[in-house]
Amino acid sequence: MSQYVYINDKLLPYQEASISYTDLSIQRGYGIFDFFRVEKGSPVLLEHHLNRFYTSAENMFLEIGKSNEALQTIIHEFIVKNAIKDSGIRITLTGGASPDGFSLGKPALIMAEQPFKPVTKEQFEKGIALMTYNYQRQLPHVKTIDYLMAIHLQATLKNCGADDVLYHNNGMVRECPRANIFMITKDGKLVTPAHQVLKGITRKHVLQVAYTCMEVEERELSLNEMYEAKEIFITSSTKKIMPVHKIDDYCLGINAITKNLSEKLSALTRLAVAE
Amino acid sequence: MSQYVYINDKLLPYQEASISYTDLSIQRGYGIFDFFRVEKGSPVLLEHHLNRFYTSAENMFLEIGKSNEALQTIIHEFIVKNAIKDSGIRITLTGGASPDGFSLGKPALIMAEQPFKPVTKEQFEKGIALMTYNYQRQLPHVKTIDYLMAIHLQATLKNCGADDVLYHNNGMVRECPRANIFMITKDGKLVTPAHQVLKGITRKHVLQVAYTCMEVEERELSLNEMYEAKEIFITSSTKKIMPVHKIDDYCLGINAITKNLSEKLSALTRLAVAE
Repeated sequence: MSQYVYINDKLLPYQEASISYTDLSIQRGYGIFDFFRVEKGSPVLLEHHLNRFYTSAENMFLEIGKSNEALQTIIHEFIVKNAIKDSGIRITLTGGASPDGFSLGKPALIMAEQPFKPVTKEQFEKGIALMTYNYQRQLPHVKTIDYLMAIHLQATLKNCGADDVLYHNNGMVRECPRANIFMITKDGKLVTPAHQVLKGITRKHVLQVAYTCMEVEERELSLNEMYEAKEIFITSSTKKIMPVHKIDDYCLGINAITKNLSEKLSALTRLAVAE
Repeated sequence: MSQYVYINDKLLPYQEASISYTDLSIQRGYGIFDFFRVEKGSPVLLEHHLNRFYTSAENMFLEIGKSNEALQTIIHEFIVKNAIKDSGIRITLTGGASPDGFSLGKPALIMAEQPFKPVTKEQFEKGIALMTYNYQRQLPHVKTIDYLMAIHLQATLKNCGADDVLYHNNGMVRECPRANIFMITKDGKLVTPAHQVLKGITRKHVLQVAYTCMEVEERELSLNEMYEAKEIFITSSTKKIMPVHKIDDYCLGINAITKNLSEKLSALTRLAVAE
């Protein structure tokens, strides 16, 4: 738990941080968020995350009520106040307290910070197992709080011994609930879905790296192609690049290209933080 | 606003009724609810609503933590305490305070009551205009808090001069965000979608009435059929039966059969309350 939680211009001990039951997030699942890492006290790729947060808000007709610059100042002060060296910060903007339980209210802006353990070398080497599931996220280009299906599938995942879900829309690959997906074909091309997904910030940087060193295709990608992949990995702000060792019953071997991209991504994002 | 709000065995003035920002409803849009009318101090069709509430909870792996009987007692005490003669009560069960923002916590049980104005004769005579939209609710048989698309479409609705949305899945009619839909064909049959919808309690009673007096079909129903309907109406616990005077650009006339069903439904539910 974070020590202090920011809600609507107030810093509160986390035990006291709450919002009205009339909020549209509680009543109607309506809200957006973003999440970024803090490494050694510095927010990682903050401008990218804030740009997406403002775009999500606009798409959902929600007013943040603060300039990007003002929000950055609040975030920097928040980081100093909590003094957690390595963490993740989640900023949430809800539909607000609704007078009738349906119309938008004045959004609540919530910021919470939690200590964060990066992926270990052992976890990277092991990789993760994916279970595929036919499902299309609604408003996929927006980072909404809608994870109804992801949470609902947790029990099924556990039963299958899988670590995460990969959504596909009638056989067309989309994304994991909290990550984008990439495959490397037998002839060494990098392929990732182009449509109906949340285009992650790590995804963007992986593509930036990959375009300099290999053939890249952003396009529709079928599950059948995935079952013939040479390598598969997922990307997210928390996991960066994480290899996939199994997708349904299809097992994958050595991850030479994934490892190479992972190292290049680290170099790029170190650069980005240092800028 | 209700005078008192019930949250996890406590009665709170509504201004103080709040839940932790860590709750999965706020973090991930995960929760269920039900809603029933209170007429002259008596809950309407309470057993039906509570049965559905328990089924929704079970479907979403959420524990209510109280027997149906215990919950009924709490509801009756709550009604007496608030002393609002005609109202609507919403009971919500959230995903609970999550330790990691993803796993289920101990659900929060929230109960809130608001004064309610029944549909007037004038509103019934006028009817409503529907705008159709291609969208399939996720987990459609469960009364979840997911109204992301419905809220998102409010601005579009307003621009179109429509009162509500009718969802269809690639041309196959489903439901309105908070109501079921029925059509009466030119040859006097009652038709309503059978699949991928939340089967409302008013829907059930309308069917019960209709089966005694007309030909009824529960089946797949296309938008094209709707555009040739004789009459169309929607059903919900708040609106009961509400005629539709327009769907997209198709206008509908006199609602003789709808009126007849509406009167029969009132007689049936009066009976149900009295039982």
